Amino acid sequence: MGEFDLIERYFKRPARQAALGVGDDCALLQPAPGTQLAISCDMLVQGRHFFADVDPFTLGHKALAVNLSDLAACGAKPLAFTLALALPRADEAWLAPFAQGLFALADAHGCELVGGDTTQGPLNICITVFGEVPVLNGRSQALLRSGARAGDDLYVSGTLGDARLALEVLRGTVSLPAPLLAAARLRLEQPTPRVALGLALRGLATAAIDVSDGLLGDLGHILQQSGVGATVNTELALALVAARADYPAAGTGSGAATRPAQWLGWALAGGDDYELLFTAPTSRRDAVAAAARTSQTAVTRIGQIDAERGLRLLDGKGQAVPNTYTSFEHFA
Amino acid sequence: MGEFDLIERYFKRPARQAALGVGDDCALLQPAPGTQLAISCDMLVQGRHFFADVDPFTLGHKALAVNLSDLAACGAKPLAFTLALALPRADEAWLAPFAQGLFALADAHGCELVGGDTTQGPLNICITVFGEVPVLNGRSQALLRSGARAGDDLYVSGTLGDARLALEVLRGTVSLPAPLLAAARLRLEQPTPRVALGLALRGLATAAIDVSDGLLGDLGHILQQSGVGATVNTELALALVAARADYPAAGTGSGAATRPAQWLGWALAGGDDYELLFTAPTSRRDAVAAAARTSQTAVTRIGQIDAERGLRLLDGKGQAVPNTYTSFEHFA
Repeated sequence: MGEFDLIERYFKRPARQAALGVGDDCALLQPAPGTQLAISCDMLVQGRHFFADVDPFTLGHKALAVNLSDLAACGAKPLAFTLALALPRADEAWLAPFAQGLFALADAHGCELVGGDTTQGPLNICITVFGEVPVLNGRSQALLRSGARAGDDLYVSGTLGDARLALEVLRGTVSLPAPLLAAARLRLEQPTPRVALGLALRGLATAAIDVSDGLLGDLGHILQQSGVGATVNTELALALVAARADYPAAGTGSGAATRPAQWLGWALAGGDDYELLFTAPTSRRDAVAAAARTSQTAVTRIGQIDAERGLRLLDGKGQAVPNTYTSFEHFA
Repeated sequence: MGEFDLIERYFKRPARQAALGVGDDCALLQPAPGTQLAISCDMLVQGRHFFADVDPFTLGHKALAVNLSDLAACGAKPLAFTLALALPRADEAWLAPFAQGLFALADAHGCELVGGDTTQGPLNICITVFGEVPVLNGRSQALLRSGARAGDDLYVSGTLGDARLALEVLRGTVSLPAPLLAAARLRLEQPTPRVALGLALRGLATAAIDVSDGLLGDLGHILQQSGVGATVNTELALALVAARADYPAAGTGSGAATRPAQWLGWALAGGDDYELLFTAPTSRRDAVAAAARTSQTAVTRIGQIDAERGLRLLDGKGQAVPNTYTSFEHFA
């Protein structure tokens, strides 16, 4: 099977929204009048972002999900994506489920594949995704990292740390009862991009980012770009690790997974959460709750934005918690 | 040096045209009213598309050039690009010249970097490029592969086969005097995307493609998508190998490089030429010549489009030449 057969068989579908899809030198997109195109790009490398033996269906899902998560953080409506794929060989047993996982998520979001590239090489998946953001009265409705203001509430969607917990189990550093692992592994391998929430937060959130490298690290980008500080309630963050509620009492499981500090580390700096971290004025709490309901996405207020720079962690009793949590760092 | 330092140091520049550039979850582009966005994506893998010891300056150039070449084939004006980069390590001695080569070409085309991703992994460069194509009276002005008509002239820009010749010298299969190798190597490592020619061909060429896998293979895409055949003059194609004119007479150089069939193979199916192959009505020959002058790009008429399907090769005397030339094929 050559490159063109491979594209024809697994990746070519008729364009629905795009003016021109797969099969020419370029794809053609015509954004609606009064909109901007939001663009993001993520590359997934075997051994770095996923294990060699990962289920290709879930990998297809995740490769697009992490890109859709960037659109969500921007408040953009998904439109289209390109896929560049380096493969050691054209293995149909891998390609078929990979394409299925990819297109299942793409179809769920009305996001179509419009072009790309395939080549031989160490497994590498690079997706560039395109979404639409309205421009109203000359102002872009995109959610940026730079708009957080002192006094704003700080929210995070969904759950935190379960993806990292699954990763640690797969690495063999901790153990977990099978049903809990299955749930945590879904979070690692098939994250849910919070697209509906991102759309519902347009005109409401003052700043937003998706949590990919870890809550505190990604919060740092909002703080830096907004020129503010923040206080985070670690007890509320810890409560967002879904597996913890069901985890057997100390003594019945692995010793490592019963240490509270480790759970907190996974919540604050686990990585691979793909939740939305965002800020909104305290006056808009009802509107945030309505956005969460509309988008059927849980949202938790875990802290606040401060005028004073820097990041402060407080436990449930208001006691300072030392920040020893570092987010994922490439080339560290 | 971490991921964010790396981006800050080598790849972050203020956005000039884009509404938002590097540094948020998404970049924001606002295409001009009445235009479409042309999008293309190419991935370059070490060992497949370039040697491990290639000069990083030329690699930065080439990674963008092959993408701009797709925009050229579409008649699109370059606007912006994203860069996803997997690197074994954050090596400043590599990154600095890579970024220089990349931005030198980007600046020459007014094409700005608006986003991307960096990660650790086997060296892999994935660029997605964005260009603008006008829509006039509801019709896209993009050049497609599908518009060739029987009777059209078939043209190719620039020269053919020199990139492949350089590759063969680097592989050690042939030898070449140093000045000839230097010139051929420029064609391999720093191809010139024919952007100005592509723009000049809007409304004139009936079909176009960029020659990346080899002349005949890429011509095959035009023929298939246009539902036509073609006749190509092999003598005219052979004359487009720039090095051949200066190559020492038989006996003074390597035996291999003096075999005419090999030169013809490089011209017809060498790959990595990044020239434009296009068709235009015979009635527009003066206009094609004017487009070549305007864009300061040589253009050679090397054949014609036939109603009869299939590809016919004829030598300078009108004798049939067997087509034994295969273009580059991934996963072959």
